[in-house]
Amino acid sequence: MFRLHPETIKRVVSQALAEDCGECDLTTEAIVRLNQPASGEFLAKEALVLAGWEVAAWAFQLRSSECVLESSYVDGQAVAKGEAIGRVRGPASALLSAERVALNFLQRLSGIATLTRQYVDAVSGTAAVIVDTRKTTPGLRNLEKYAVRVGGGRNHRFGLFDGVLIKENHIAVAGGIDQAIASVRRSVDHLKKIEVEVTSLHELQQALDAGADAVLLDNMKPDEVREAVRLAAGRAVLEVSGGIQLETVREYALTGVQIISVGALTHSPRAMDISLELQR
Amino acid sequence: MFRLHPETIKRVVSQALAEDCGECDLTTEAIVRLNQPASGEFLAKEALVLAGWEVAAWAFQLRSSECVLESSYVDGQAVAKGEAIGRVRGPASALLSAERVALNFLQRLSGIATLTRQYVDAVSGTAAVIVDTRKTTPGLRNLEKYAVRVGGGRNHRFGLFDGVLIKENHIAVAGGIDQAIASVRRSVDHLKKIEVEVTSLHELQQALDAGADAVLLDNMKPDEVREAVRLAAGRAVLEVSGGIQLETVREYALTGVQIISVGALTHSPRAMDISLELQR
Amino acid sequence: MFRLHPETIKRVVSQALAEDCGECDLTTEAIVRLNQPASGEFLAKEALVLAGWEVAAWAFQLRSSECVLESSYVDGQAVAKGEAIGRVRGPASALLSAERVALNFLQRLSGIATLTRQYVDAVSGTAAVIVDTRKTTPGLRNLEKYAVRVGGGRNHRFGLFDGVLIKENHIAVAGGIDQAIASVRRSVDHLKKIEVEVTSLHELQQALDAGADAVLLDNMKPDEVREAVRLAAGRAVLEVSGGIQLETVREYALTGVQIISVGALTHSPRAMDISLELQR
Amino acid sequence: MFRLHPETIKRVVSQALAEDCGECDLTTEAIVRLNQPASGEFLAKEALVLAGWEVAAWAFQLRSSECVLESSYVDGQAVAKGEAIGRVRGPASALLSAERVALNFLQRLSGIATLTRQYVDAVSGTAAVIVDTRKTTPGLRNLEKYAVRVGGGRNHRFGLFDGVLIKENHIAVAGGIDQAIASVRRSVDHLKKIEVEVTSLHELQQALDAGADAVLLDNMKPDEVREAVRLAAGRAVLEVSGGIQLETVREYALTGVQIISVGALTHSPRAMDISLELQR
Amino acid sequence: MFRLHPETIKRVVSQALAEDCGECDLTTEAIVRLNQPASGEFLAKEALVLAGWEVAAWAFQLRSSECVLESSYVDGQAVAKGEAIGRVRGPASALLSAERVALNFLQRLSGIATLTRQYVDAVSGTAAVIVDTRKTTPGLRNLEKYAVRVGGGRNHRFGLFDGVLIKENHIAVAGGIDQAIASVRRSVDHLKKIEVEVTSLHELQQALDAGADAVLLDNMKPDEVREAVRLAAGRAVLEVSGGIQLETVREYALTGVQIISVGALTHSPRAMDISLELQR
Amino acid sequence: MFRLHPETIKRVVSQALAEDCGECDLTTEAIVRLNQPASGEFLAKEALVLAGWEVAAWAFQLRSSECVLESSYVDGQAVAKGEAIGRVRGPASALLSAERVALNFLQRLSGIATLTRQYVDAVSGTAAVIVDTRKTTPGLRNLEKYAVRVGGGRNHRFGLFDGVLIKENHIAVAGGIDQAIASVRRSVDHLKKIEVEVTSLHELQQALDAGADAVLLDNMKPDEVREAVRLAAGRAVLEVSGGIQLETVREYALTGVQIISVGALTHSPRAMDISLELQR
Repeated sequence: MFRLHPETIKRVVSQALAEDCGECDLTTEAIVRLNQPASGEFLAKEALVLAGWEVAAWAFQLRSSECVLESSYVDGQAVAKGEAIGRVRGPASALLSAERVALNFLQRLSGIATLTRQYVDAVSGTAAVIVDTRKTTPGLRNLEKYAVRVGGGRNHRFGLFDGVLIKENHIAVAGGIDQAIASVRRSVDHLKKIEVEVTSLHELQQALDAGADAVLLDNMKPDEVREAVRLAAGRAVLEVSGGIQLETVREYALTGVQIISVGALTHSPRAMDISLELQR
Repeated sequence: MFRLHPETIKRVVSQALAEDCGECDLTTEAIVRLNQPASGEFLAKEALVLAGWEVAAWAFQLRSSECVLESSYVDGQAVAKGEAIGRVRGPASALLSAERVALNFLQRLSGIATLTRQYVDAVSGTAAVIVDTRKTTPGLRNLEKYAVRVGGGRNHRFGLFDGVLIKENHIAVAGGIDQAIASVRRSVDHLKKIEVEVTSLHELQQALDAGADAVLLDNMKPDEVREAVRLAAGRAVLEVSGGIQLETVREYALTGVQIISVGALTHSPRAMDISLELQR
Repeated sequence: MFRLHPETIKRVVSQALAEDCGECDLTTEAIVRLNQPASGEFLAKEALVLAGWEVAAWAFQLRSSECVLESSYVDGQAVAKGEAIGRVRGPASALLSAERVALNFLQRLSGIATLTRQYVDAVSGTAAVIVDTRKTTPGLRNLEKYAVRVGGGRNHRFGLFDGVLIKENHIAVAGGIDQAIASVRRSVDHLKKIEVEVTSLHELQQALDAGADAVLLDNMKPDEVREAVRLAAGRAVLEVSGGIQLETVREYALTGVQIISVGALTHSPRAMDISLELQR
Repeated sequence: MFRLHPETIKRVVSQALAEDCGECDLTTEAIVRLNQPASGEFLAKEALVLAGWEVAAWAFQLRSSECVLESSYVDGQAVAKGEAIGRVRGPASALLSAERVALNFLQRLSGIATLTRQYVDAVSGTAAVIVDTRKTTPGLRNLEKYAVRVGGGRNHRFGLFDGVLIKENHIAVAGGIDQAIASVRRSVDHLKKIEVEVTSLHELQQALDAGADAVLLDNMKPDEVREAVRLAAGRAVLEVSGGIQLETVREYALTGVQIISVGALTHSPRAMDISLELQR
Repeated sequence: MFRLHPETIKRVVSQALAEDCGECDLTTEAIVRLNQPASGEFLAKEALVLAGWEVAAWAFQLRSSECVLESSYVDGQAVAKGEAIGRVRGPASALLSAERVALNFLQRLSGIATLTRQYVDAVSGTAAVIVDTRKTTPGLRNLEKYAVRVGGGRNHRFGLFDGVLIKENHIAVAGGIDQAIASVRRSVDHLKKIEVEVTSLHELQQALDAGADAVLLDNMKPDEVREAVRLAAGRAVLEVSGGIQLETVREYALTGVQIISVGALTHSPRAMDISLELQR
Repeated sequence: MFRLHPETIKRVVSQALAEDCGECDLTTEAIVRLNQPASGEFLAKEALVLAGWEVAAWAFQLRSSECVLESSYVDGQAVAKGEAIGRVRGPASALLSAERVALNFLQRLSGIATLTRQYVDAVSGTAAVIVDTRKTTPGLRNLEKYAVRVGGGRNHRFGLFDGVLIKENHIAVAGGIDQAIASVRRSVDHLKKIEVEVTSLHELQQALDAGADAVLLDNMKPDEVREAVRLAAGRAVLEVSGGIQLETVREYALTGVQIISVGALTHSPRAMDISLELQR
């Protein structure tokens, strides 16, 4: 599974610390003695799937290399309501200055992993996989896609640079599915598959005829998807997207579609309630 | 009202574009002819309070300075479901490459403004103001605080560097409310007020006795808040925070508390459903 | 065809100007009067395929926005020995300070385009396409891959992030072709094809059996390649690489292989001889 | 001898790694287990003078601080065809991800050192020294000038900021050799010598009369250079440049000229053939 | 007391080293053998209050992590003329290359601390505190405000972002003291106090009536300040600024004003005379 | 004369604005209406030589491109006490936010130019030139050296990278003047002169014998300098430095020494008193 690189984490966390702390944490630096030690405990105030523990750890360690975090959980594990997720100890000043940034990451990423896990569980036993989209928070894409992975989902392409997806707006501009596919085939290297978004079975047929490697069925009802699966007959990978809820996802999975992409995983997760309580 | 500076927007949007587009939008650049023009319409697929129009505009303009956006709405105005928010025209390649980034910002910021407006409306006619917290998305604090403002809320401090708030963890480390306030008073300049977080009326009394300029009542029930207002008797600004929902916020507002801070405005807004449809 | 983005050019050229000019061009600034105008002509001192004209233009324009370049050639066109490629005019100080940087880019990129054109011409009339590799100059990959495109070649993947190529060293580490392909299939998204490097027909068979989408034939003689084409029988895209010279490339193209990748296009091109002569 | 600073290497190598690896090495990360160790051997597939070993080492170490490189050669030493240059061991993922970047540097810099050594050997026993020019690869000047030094050559100025060389185009703009020298003398500090490029013995005389400290003889034949040496009679340092080949360089060296600058050292070296073979 | 963060120091010192050393210290690198050790002593050539010892230390350590500095003094302590401030040892090359940058910081910051101490001593025994202004050297504000603190002074706000001070020019633009205060009160969060600059007792009365939390008395004579203190009667914090010299500061302090801000502390300190003498 | 490049100014001024303004000018943005215009006048509150007008202009223009500055003076001209230096008009918000940064630069740079002019005037009619040193404010070297030039002085080298000066500490490490000069001669390119610092006539003789191109006489009295001039007899450029005051500089100039370098020009100038008064 793709890892979250330390350099990526450090870059994003540094920026978040700079945004929150500026040049001076007025309250903490006025109160805390130099080198005064402290420790604290992270508590899950609701049941959650953990994601971002290492990200949170970097928030503290970038304030002081003496901070140490310990946990009996790893990312991807479920934590019950009321459980202690882990502990941090180090200079009190670092703990107090980094607390909010650490929690902001941890709460958001765990929110994504928890929501993903719910979708993944809902389709268990079917052949369908849950994947994310490009509807991520600006600046946090790598972290959020990581949270999807530890939640049990898989990733769609990382961005516009590493995969081809011909969307409705591309087709409108190109003048047709045929033209769009032909243009892409002339340009991209031989390692890229070509996926096309379609809104009807008629367009699906066009895409298949033009040799699409994959087809994204946009906003189709389960019955229509089932029909699409029959029509494609294995000639292309089929993906469905658009308005799929936790309540309806299993019905889609049972159509035989291979890939179900869910924007809500990253655009509207609820932050998990996690607190940090320090002891002197 | 504080503005969102173009330089701030440009920096954040540039980063988001780099993250999504990398060095090459494989699909768009293969399909679109150089200088091929296009235009499109932004549609509100649900009722919302607009926020981030200018941010979205920069996403297109940073891809091509020829992009032009027009809207009859400004940030802070309500848009009904099904209405067109505005239009964009420019090179098709810029429209296609920037679309997702523009929407990611617009949907999230409008989500925050819409949620804020609901809270603000819920307390209308009372003396209470709705303010945000530091529970913002890492990297987007200035944008999210702006969305709170256009939604009708007010901002709390921007970060640890521009305001003093002595929280429970600070008190734990300092050894008491008195010591904490005294330490801060010795250090910060004469332009800062001192706010203290308390969890009981007893602690409130301590804070008032120590001369706190403002007090944050943490996780108190409305009755307790009402009692706190009586106790403070105008000697300090009172703020309440913690688990306040849309359903309960008015009850808090009626206690006479001056400031109600709501983390959910920025940590768990739902992205508004907005689409962009291009014409050739 | 993928474009070379102005932002990419500006970033690379700015760095080159900083490297060469530092804070002060001692000679030029001592000699030239403020706003003294000048103009000059670029001469092809040998026959070449032009590449990098816009890059060279940016070198001047980043020193002074008043610099104007004109040419009757565009990138990809052949220029005969002795011909004037184009003209530049603007402040003498900008022309003198940017000259070397502009020429360094123009000479190198035209060298790549010229060499690529020779390979492309050598295989004309066959089904084979000439592609580049990752053996590019550190820092200049986008520019060099652009030069390959205007020379008539096509690009392989941009880097490790946008395409899968399982090389000999990967296989050594993975413990076999099968294991390697299976691992990749579990991880990458559904838009990526999987290419495997093989050094024998036996390995080719393994790769085909494991379902490779493409196979790179490493350092094979034309006869062996011909045999590979027969063996693959269209089940996978075939690419050949390794020690292919201008003298031998046509023989490879005639084997029926689809893709011929040539590292020398970017790792060992000869800089074209181009001069700039200023008039007062 | 001037060193290549670690900070310089790290900056250039980091950029190269970012360019090649992006956020994810799709192939390697799918195949390699976390912390799986590996090692490998660098082989000289042709005779070469080594340059850039430390640069290559940084490529691996910037991917993982656990990578260790060992070699019995140091930069500047000759390595025979078929010899092992050295070994690397560390996490397999780091070895696979950094391999190409490391080789791209090593092959190019060794190419420059090898070519430089050939020129230096060709003039051995004469008083002439071989120096480089500003015709370096944009972004790599410090590294390439280092490769020239370990090849046995010497450096000309680093850029426009640290030495004065009045070239033909400066003279054209200034209106004459006299005026140009006088202008420079009025401006530069007392630690700079003044060199002037001339294309004839007549201009050489002008330069000497105007008090030039050094003179660059541009594109002169050996006979003319010999005459120039006689004319200068030690009053100025003489440098010759322009179209000097390995075959003709000794003839130039025997004229008595002190400095021979060769652009081809850095603008058109052939990359040396070096491979890295991993063992599991 | 607020600390000077290592990251702040490193950023500023790195920039200073880059500015001074560029890519090569021509003299040092030509002379010093690799790894040749050296040591040296910092001498106070005049009496001073030390500030910036850690900053100076970073100058050496950023050139080589092997540099070690030792001192029996800490920032804020007085050093008598002729005393040794401390010692440095490490690679001779690092000592020689970083010497000037280290001294430039140490001499300037000690100059500020020494001057501040003189002002602080001059008002000893009174209730007045000496504070700095925003008249700092561009780029060095955090360092210079730190030097003021170790000299015994206190800081005014860090910048325009963390405190409100309505100055004469604001009032001119706003159309009056009342309007300006009202506008600010509507915008800023509840943690900021509001200070207003006034030039007469009449304006002071206006500011008090409008509810200013603090008032800056601009360029008033001691008698007028005394009158202002009487007028304010504790309703607002009073600060005086403008043309206050070492000779007159005590007279101001005796008026009962609480805060005396002195621009000269940072805009015109004299650099202390400090030398570094190396032994082989 | 070397210019101050717009890019240099912009980089330094941007940093200063960021340092002072952060993300929000709390006071100005609360008070000023969007697009409210204003104008103001810069007044010289004491006689001065102007330097940094363009730098100050950038401070405003980087806040708003609509700001316009006009002056009847140019850098290097004397302005009498009480005179208006120039005017600025533009958006009130930009004027108020940039004022302090603009003045901080203008006051400091004019301070340097004014002090330099005094030294230059003091040696008028002699052959000596006044030059600066590397004792500049970290981060501002290019600007401060520019101020020296417009004040009528000349520059020494820009840094360690563009000129050779063998100082006492180098000699201590090298083991002698001879060894030091020989080492440098072997390393540096043929465009650099070699200067050596000496503390006695005996060392001067050594330096001359070793072929130094220039010699820096450190901390010598005028009589000793006169003797040194006699001893050197034109064989090397002579520079004197160390403790030279406005009162004594002419005496040094009359010794026949060519160059007098004065650290105080940049390490201890007094900021000139300049104000900006806005009208609504």
